[in-house]
Amino acid sequence: MTDPASPERPAAGLSRRGLLGLALGAGAAGVAVGVGATAAVARVSDAQAAPRADTQPFFGVHQSGITTEVQDHLHFAAFDVSDTTSREELVELLQDWSYAASRMMLGLEVSASGAVGGSPEAPPDDTGEALGLPASNLTITFGFGPTLFRSADGVDRFGIAAGAPEVLAPLPPFLGDDLDPDHTGGDLCVQACADDPQVAVHAVRNLSRIAFGRARLRWSQLGFGRTSRTSAQQQTPRNLFGFKDGTANLLATDEEALAEHVWVSAEDGPAWLAGGSYLVARKIAMKIETWDRVRLSEQETITGRAKGSGAPLNGGDEFTAPDFAALSASGGTAIDPASHVARAHPDHNGGIRMLRRGYNYVDGNTALGRLDAGLFFLGYVRSPERFITVQKSVATDLMMEYLLTIGSGIWAIPPAPSEGSFVGAGLFS
Amino acid sequence: MTDPASPERPAAGLSRRGLLGLALGAGAAGVAVGVGATAAVARVSDAQAAPRADTQPFFGVHQSGITTEVQDHLHFAAFDVSDTTSREELVELLQDWSYAASRMMLGLEVSASGAVGGSPEAPPDDTGEALGLPASNLTITFGFGPTLFRSADGVDRFGIAAGAPEVLAPLPPFLGDDLDPDHTGGDLCVQACADDPQVAVHAVRNLSRIAFGRARLRWSQLGFGRTSRTSAQQQTPRNLFGFKDGTANLLATDEEALAEHVWVSAEDGPAWLAGGSYLVARKIAMKIETWDRVRLSEQETITGRAKGSGAPLNGGDEFTAPDFAALSASGGTAIDPASHVARAHPDHNGGIRMLRRGYNYVDGNTALGRLDAGLFFLGYVRSPERFITVQKSVATDLMMEYLLTIGSGIWAIPPAPSEGSFVGAGLFS
Repeated sequence: MTDPASPERPAAGLSRRGLLGLALGAGAAGVAVGVGATAAVARVSDAQAAPRADTQPFFGVHQSGITTEVQDHLHFAAFDVSDTTSREELVELLQDWSYAASRMMLGLEVSASGAVGGSPEAPPDDTGEALGLPASNLTITFGFGPTLFRSADGVDRFGIAAGAPEVLAPLPPFLGDDLDPDHTGGDLCVQACADDPQVAVHAVRNLSRIAFGRARLRWSQLGFGRTSRTSAQQQTPRNLFGFKDGTANLLATDEEALAEHVWVSAEDGPAWLAGGSYLVARKIAMKIETWDRVRLSEQETITGRAKGSGAPLNGGDEFTAPDFAALSASGGTAIDPASHVARAHPDHNGGIRMLRRGYNYVDGNTALGRLDAGLFFLGYVRSPERFITVQKSVATDLMMEYLLTIGSGIWAIPPAPSEGSFVGAGLFS
Repeated sequence: MTDPASPERPAAGLSRRGLLGLALGAGAAGVAVGVGATAAVARVSDAQAAPRADTQPFFGVHQSGITTEVQDHLHFAAFDVSDTTSREELVELLQDWSYAASRMMLGLEVSASGAVGGSPEAPPDDTGEALGLPASNLTITFGFGPTLFRSADGVDRFGIAAGAPEVLAPLPPFLGDDLDPDHTGGDLCVQACADDPQVAVHAVRNLSRIAFGRARLRWSQLGFGRTSRTSAQQQTPRNLFGFKDGTANLLATDEEALAEHVWVSAEDGPAWLAGGSYLVARKIAMKIETWDRVRLSEQETITGRAKGSGAPLNGGDEFTAPDFAALSASGGTAIDPASHVARAHPDHNGGIRMLRRGYNYVDGNTALGRLDAGLFFLGYVRSPERFITVQKSVATDLMMEYLLTIGSGIWAIPPAPSEGSFVGAGLFS
């Protein structure tokens, strides 16, 4: 993050009322906190003309953090708007979050006064642990859950139920679900990805702080190893079963496929969501101790790919297309029809593809001395039904014996705000 | 990690009986698992003559992972030798761990057959998620806890009590302790640090697997942001209070200070520990929500340093020596005598310094929607008494109001094994 002596540039014009409120609410009433909403400190004065190599845009068409080349670290957070039922306060929260996110994605502190530039007699606006760190390709991606539009008991708290996407609803139960309510759902979600985990954690922490009095953190998850790629330049990483994951993922350059599979179109509706998407998050515990006792050939049969190369079992290399008709030496199909690669493949799901950007996680260990580990699945789809179709298909594949889904959520992902606006503004206009 | 087609080099001569046992025990009895103990696959045939830029040595004088330039990621694990009371099996565990660690620190798999080079009808020796990743400066540092020498009920299970360092005992209770037994103690510890978290996790996972039937994981901790430095080339990082941490840490180049403060000497005894050290781990929960509401001037008074620059409150820059006699404009001392920097300073602790290499952690969030965050302190000292002296001094400093120590442990850290031997061999000879 920049130090406060850096040059300034005009800001996005968003309210920072919430940030001021944060400082004032903590007992510093009457203290001038710093410059107003029209001045923001930027690292370089020509930031807009020549974006830094390690920054991603907050404003534009689609939110960053979807097709962005997958960063190595994740801090995901779900929030409930539990402390207000005011539509105006929800809008102000989204404005404040957008203001802070647009700054943090430039490598800046959450406000112009930041961690050390405010009054010594006030709590700092920024918590400071990212001071001195580069922007680290931080992306902050916001989403709106079904319960934002209508609470679990059916109340339209914010007068936005009429704008809800018809297709947005809590996911149905799937085989293999054992959902913990403390890792499921949430009115709002924040996906923070960065090259440096401290930068992602700093973002969630500060957004959580800015939400004070309006929304509160419901659950959160750190992830440390990406399990997909969105760029042909990225190596395919491995999941905690030791297999390459994400080989056939949608790439950022494949605009036609993204339009078909990821982006909500104007015809799909509602209008405010055009250019957006739907995000499904699934916390999938992996029974790694059991898996590690399975013989190699069986691991490969379950997956449908070779463990070393990642090639489908019909041969070739990682990028060879799976051939589900190819026969093995013993006479059966080379790829088991119940393998994970078969059940997840577009050929067996009406052509559906999704953009995945999941992460490995380890949450310490269980009381039995086993690592509490798994995959935090993140998938972007043009409609929830697309995810549901594929999930029903894989829910009985051979791999499910080694998986347990313990957390889940779905959120509508608005398009990126235009310069000077805030995320989801179209829903409130 | 290298693929199994890479050239070979002579191994360290350590037993890999345990690795074979792992595969055999899982139902593949009679299957040839691969090459024997005298062949190990190396990435480059001249690995010894010209170590790679991203590898650290396993054999030598002191274990790596103490003065090694602090890597960005940690997976720490404590084990109990709960499944055997055989001295021979403990020795074999240490041999197997040393064999696997020496390979992984070279960027290799845990055995020559690894994840994909063994029989397809046997579970792989290596879990595979680090295949294709560089060595990432992985260091694996082993330690022996008080309960290894004599169990909590006083039993000398392994016939090694006579070799126990006289000064090694569970730490006394301190003010601010609220220790969770599930994050405290352990017969053995493994500190895995790496540039890539997946490499550190892979190491702990595989060592845990190798321990099967002898030791089991008691607790573990991931850390993502180093909070110290051991090299003048490293920038001083920030902890989750937003302050620079580790400015005055012992550096790897300061051999005189290391001999005085970190390394156990031959005179200190016991002989097998000469060149080793003592490691204290403390899981310190930080009340970050409360801290974030404290005004800047008070945060700086508590710490004794400026939040932005890291300079002591008597002025200067980060590396200016604190002057505890300097006066402030208002007439008192510039640095509060109860501040953290004052209470932790060698001047107020009989000259004691320690080598710290702690990490920030975030374990998701509490049920109250607060990030469950803190500092995982790791400090190396020449004797436990040195840590105890400093801890008693800081346990009543101004910062303690915002801290709660929820996990703790102490381990004797043997010197590095010589080539062909195993960690702690001197204890058993």
